Amino acid sequence: TSPLEHHAVLHTLNALEEEGRISLEMVSVDQHGFIDLQHLEQLLKDQPKTLVALMHGNNEIGNLTDIKLVGALCQEHNAFFHSDAVQTVGHYKHDLKEIPAQSIAASAHKFHGPKGIGFMYINKNNKLHPFIHGGAQERNMRGGTENVSGIVGLSKALEIAYQEMDHHKELIEGLKLRMIRKFDKAMPGVAFNGASADLEKSLYTVLNVCLPESEDHDMLLFNLDIHGISASGGSACSSGATKSSHVLEALQADSNRGHVRFSFSRFNTEEDIDYTVDRVVSFYPALVN
Amino acid sequence: TSPLEHHAVLHTLNALEEEGRISLEMVSVDQHGFIDLQHLEQLLKDQPKTLVALMHGNNEIGNLTDIKLVGALCQEHNAFFHSDAVQTVGHYKHDLKEIPAQSIAASAHKFHGPKGIGFMYINKNNKLHPFIHGGAQERNMRGGTENVSGIVGLSKALEIAYQEMDHHKELIEGLKLRMIRKFDKAMPGVAFNGASADLEKSLYTVLNVCLPESEDHDMLLFNLDIHGISASGGSACSSGATKSSHVLEALQADSNRGHVRFSFSRFNTEEDIDYTVDRVVSFYPALVN
Repeated sequence: TSPLEHHAVLHTLNALEEEGRISLEMVSVDQHGFIDLQHLEQLLKDQPKTLVALMHGNNEIGNLTDIKLVGALCQEHNAFFHSDAVQTVGHYKHDLKEIPAQSIAASAHKFHGPKGIGFMYINKNNKLHPFIHGGAQERNMRGGTENVSGIVGLSKALEIAYQEMDHHKELIEGLKLRMIRKFDKAMPGVAFNGASADLEKSLYTVLNVCLPESEDHDMLLFNLDIHGISASGGSACSSGATKSSHVLEALQADSNRGHVRFSFSRFNTEEDIDYTVDRVVSFYPALVN
Repeated sequence: TSPLEHHAVLHTLNALEEEGRISLEMVSVDQHGFIDLQHLEQLLKDQPKTLVALMHGNNEIGNLTDIKLVGALCQEHNAFFHSDAVQTVGHYKHDLKEIPAQSIAASAHKFHGPKGIGFMYINKNNKLHPFIHGGAQERNMRGGTENVSGIVGLSKALEIAYQEMDHHKELIEGLKLRMIRKFDKAMPGVAFNGASADLEKSLYTVLNVCLPESEDHDMLLFNLDIHGISASGGSACSSGATKSSHVLEALQADSNRGHVRFSFSRFNTEEDIDYTVDRVVSFYPALVN
């Protein structure tokens, strides 16, 4: 795995390591948030027949992993490649005949389906043991009465997502580009974390903005919230203490700068983008042109 | 635990034992399906500070466990008492100040809520480790985006169940009694498995009928199904092979007799009961009065 994986994946793997059930190796990442394929190859040479868990699209900085390349590398070393594709399923087409992943995971709420339901594709050549025992549901792989309405909702949401995927991609990419350009124009020294400003190498649904140095960043998310803008920070408040993002930490992002992540969907408009950038700019009169 | 627990509970405990993570003891049961409290007490004396898992109401034969008594016994020996109350929550009132259980589990679809959602009460004096790691959801006890619509549905269904519980109980108990009387009258030698004919000691929602010996039992569930009656057998067909119920096996039920379980809800009518008994009777012309 890599230090940029979703915190839920990292927590799970860390818990398994603490229980002594696995040993864990981290693939190095570069300053832009891309995994070091040479390091991965070295790890695979040292320990073939292992489980490699690398996400398809990073949830915080949007970096896309070349899962065909990683999958081919894993195949070469008989490793099991699992990809957390929660950020990409419903936004990109996944042809599982072309992607040499043994399993991928997805969540319905990331493509406008219901919360609390997801799915996992597992290549049928693998024999996995169930994690949740019990009844014979889901071919003995996951005991428990199924969340039927959730499954139906997930299925319909994915169908809708596929119907106009290209059109939605164009629309949402346009919104992201608009935000990049507006920030660049209004705020000298603004930057974008990871590869999030690179439309080819990052999710079109995420932009992680790195604001210039200021003493007013503490109030940023709070101010966005009272102006009706939902955004995530490089920091998440828990019980009063500010905890920085493990992804931005791994990228050694400057903690004196402000980090804020905007996500876009087909339900956003150009007006939303303009309003958001105007609001952010208004919080920092000293930083603007 | 006991051999009459829900198969999902038994499968889970067996899997943990196979992994060498627990050692498992079975509390004896008598021929009526009640657990042997003296045996339980002996087990608790031999191994205090253990986990005791005994269900509140048996899903197949309806037997009710005196969970106040079991809970008090567990408390005395510092054991953790967990009760699968899936059959009783929403049909009986659970005052958790009175029931010395450390945890109870429930499922929404058992009280007309949505499928695939349940809840677990855990007494706050216990510190349990999460089974599913990941995010901080549900106070760090269960990672993963919550099934919000399911939670809302469960909550509403339980509210409705509590509103007219006494009235529904009276109604459903009447239906069960009607079925017992009709079977007794129409079919000499009919019996009822476990304590299911005892209205005080069994769920009012379940009746497990034991039909007299016959060579025609193989077609019973099939015939019920084509007449629009949903019922479960003492047997469940899987890939063509008939597998008998582990509960009826533990009670050493006669496999030459037919075993069929009927469940009642507030949406059933006296006509449903009459129609069902008449249909069953019509399948066995040689057995009836």
